[in-house]
Amino acid sequence: MTNENKNIERAEILTIGSEILLGELVDTNTAWISTNLAKLGVGIYRHTTVGDNKERVVAAMKDAASRADLVITTGGLGPTSDDITNECLAILADLPMVEYAEARAHVDEMFRRFGRTPTPSNYSQALFPEGTKLIPNPLGTAPGALLDVDGTLFATLPGVPAEMKGMFEETLAPLIKERTDGSIISRTLWFAGIGESAIAERVQDFLDASDPTVAPLAGAGKVRLRITTRAATPEEAEKKIAPVAEEILDRLGEYHFGVDDETLESAVARILTEQKATVALAESCTGGLLAKRLTDLPGSSAYFREGLVTYSDEAKERLLGVPTEMVEEHGAVSEPVAKKMADGVRRLAGADYGLSVTGVAGPDGGTEEKFVGLVWVGISDGNGVEGKRLDLSAWAKSRSSIRERSANAAFDILRQKLDGSKEF
Amino acid sequence: MTNENKNIERAEILTIGSEILLGELVDTNTAWISTNLAKLGVGIYRHTTVGDNKERVVAAMKDAASRADLVITTGGLGPTSDDITNECLAILADLPMVEYAEARAHVDEMFRRFGRTPTPSNYSQALFPEGTKLIPNPLGTAPGALLDVDGTLFATLPGVPAEMKGMFEETLAPLIKERTDGSIISRTLWFAGIGESAIAERVQDFLDASDPTVAPLAGAGKVRLRITTRAATPEEAEKKIAPVAEEILDRLGEYHFGVDDETLESAVARILTEQKATVALAESCTGGLLAKRLTDLPGSSAYFREGLVTYSDEAKERLLGVPTEMVEEHGAVSEPVAKKMADGVRRLAGADYGLSVTGVAGPDGGTEEKFVGLVWVGISDGNGVEGKRLDLSAWAKSRSSIRERSANAAFDILRQKLDGSKEF
Repeated sequence: MTNENKNIERAEILTIGSEILLGELVDTNTAWISTNLAKLGVGIYRHTTVGDNKERVVAAMKDAASRADLVITTGGLGPTSDDITNECLAILADLPMVEYAEARAHVDEMFRRFGRTPTPSNYSQALFPEGTKLIPNPLGTAPGALLDVDGTLFATLPGVPAEMKGMFEETLAPLIKERTDGSIISRTLWFAGIGESAIAERVQDFLDASDPTVAPLAGAGKVRLRITTRAATPEEAEKKIAPVAEEILDRLGEYHFGVDDETLESAVARILTEQKATVALAESCTGGLLAKRLTDLPGSSAYFREGLVTYSDEAKERLLGVPTEMVEEHGAVSEPVAKKMADGVRRLAGADYGLSVTGVAGPDGGTEEKFVGLVWVGISDGNGVEGKRLDLSAWAKSRSSIRERSANAAFDILRQKLDGSKEF
Repeated sequence: MTNENKNIERAEILTIGSEILLGELVDTNTAWISTNLAKLGVGIYRHTTVGDNKERVVAAMKDAASRADLVITTGGLGPTSDDITNECLAILADLPMVEYAEARAHVDEMFRRFGRTPTPSNYSQALFPEGTKLIPNPLGTAPGALLDVDGTLFATLPGVPAEMKGMFEETLAPLIKERTDGSIISRTLWFAGIGESAIAERVQDFLDASDPTVAPLAGAGKVRLRITTRAATPEEAEKKIAPVAEEILDRLGEYHFGVDDETLESAVARILTEQKATVALAESCTGGLLAKRLTDLPGSSAYFREGLVTYSDEAKERLLGVPTEMVEEHGAVSEPVAKKMADGVRRLAGADYGLSVTGVAGPDGGTEEKFVGLVWVGISDGNGVEGKRLDLSAWAKSRSSIRERSANAAFDILRQKLDGSKEF
């Protein structure tokens, strides 16, 4: 049914769901899809969100089709009566809804795996406009639909991010790639330990240039520079991007921790793996956030030994050997305690590195001396132990910002140590 | 200029900015505005996002005006040539742009405070369609515009969330309040341990009803039902919502864990605080996620003692007393190990409850017997210890889904234990 010859130049994204429309959920899918469409060289014209209302969904589909070659919808593929996306697509295309045997079998198979029995409503997920191609959904019960309607290709994806992403990457992206001319290719350089304006000052000439473009974006103690160009082949793009990236790194290399999808924790993981080194964590105010982030990564058991979330002073003493007198004299949020925690957990775990965080994450519990946002990071490598003070009081109103920024700073301190960019 | 007599019933939100359209930034403003409009009793029809392109912005404004009484825009109020929102509004309304002396003075005042000198482009922020009322912006240089265009009220707000929120709350919300009848009030009931379709079957009569409406939403092992009504006063709304909530809880009470903003961890935290009880955690595959989520909450030190992320078998033995032979015989992902971990950490920390998770989060490392998605949760309370098996193999391709759902299940198991809904 799809017009295999027509190039895809313009796309729109249509989000379907009253929970998004009413603001109960923030829509992160649309940004993800946009980024990935842009990488494929597809121009994005509009994002639209409508609620679970047939008339309005059909109207929005029609509007989008009048402008775009490709319309990707998310949401409204579930088993309840609110889930109307495919039905609306059938109305738009003036096609009957028919049951797809393979989709029905998929519902059965997924329920068998959960050890549950499908209800009649679950089988509504096997109904599609006649002639639809299915987009397989290995993570959920609802496949998506792929249907050409008067020259506009519609792809319906579920709202659950993991399902949507898998389906986009496995089925949609390869299909779009075949129908675009060249691609927009970009490389993202990541920096920490330096602010956005300080970076901008050093690379203003690139920010003012037009091909490649270089755009900064900052958040949570990290800054990224995105270098973008359009080219027929990846090799051609590389020729334009590489010299710019090289010159930027010449100027800012000491703050650089990764490219593209790399995070501070994945940079740390990469270097630890290369060096066959291990790390152990002792956390107080971050409460497991560092351990969580390090173990988000597959294969983390190679370099991550253990993490202790020692929230109470008693646990700091019993597990890490932080003496009661030290806490009494300096407070739990202090350089000596951070250092003792880092060294204690390194010894306990028999790891190469020990990393610790202790601070006041707030919103309550701050005093003049130990204010909300005061954080100490400790790092130990067997040759020495060091403490670094962070003042995150500018984010005193946000416990999550303080925790996030503390974790970023701690990972960056470990990265610099591993990189050899800083010696004890 | 504004039609003071016309009620505001339908609103649309228009986001203007290429960085949102291209997915470089996630738009959180729209959800925030939607929630706040819904509270004011205004129905929301559509969200639209367009890039920094005059023709497309004007077209989107026109589309929105054809459907809505109120159109709120965010973005495009800055000093650069990309910032075109007010100019587009002037084109739509066919009005000249004129300089507002008070806005020019505000630019001067803000720059004086920063200790900087405005450039000519900064004064572009003092230009508005003739006849506009200004929306003061105490936090930034750009005021917003308030203009009636053929019966649709346009309000332009900046994209910076803090500025946008302040302007909405201080100027826009009071104005909207005067032009609406009553408010939309809703209550959300949260459930775990039961699927969306099973819930829908038991309360289908409410899902089909129109006042209050009841809408389901599912994700990551939790389901919520949102009960919504429109009423002149909160008391009147309560009279309509309370009997529906009561009847739903009569049918589904055993799966119910919280209302409105409550999460599984905040439900656990609330009950632990009420019971003056404490918990300690031993995590393997979740790698600190449970500790992180429990300590996301302010005041968590009252009930959270410590969390051990024992990733290696050696750490399980040394810290928690899980014998090597047990791991060798049953594997690290097994009922005896989960139970030993839960009991071990409870004893070690001197806590009332011990909660443990051990599983195969993948994507690699699965075998036929210990497949990716096999998870054991252990719970110990001093009277006994119990293990519960989870089969999350349906999410085998998503490490983060397995970890998220494992944490949700573990918190729900603890909640049921605390609630007394389940005895050992």
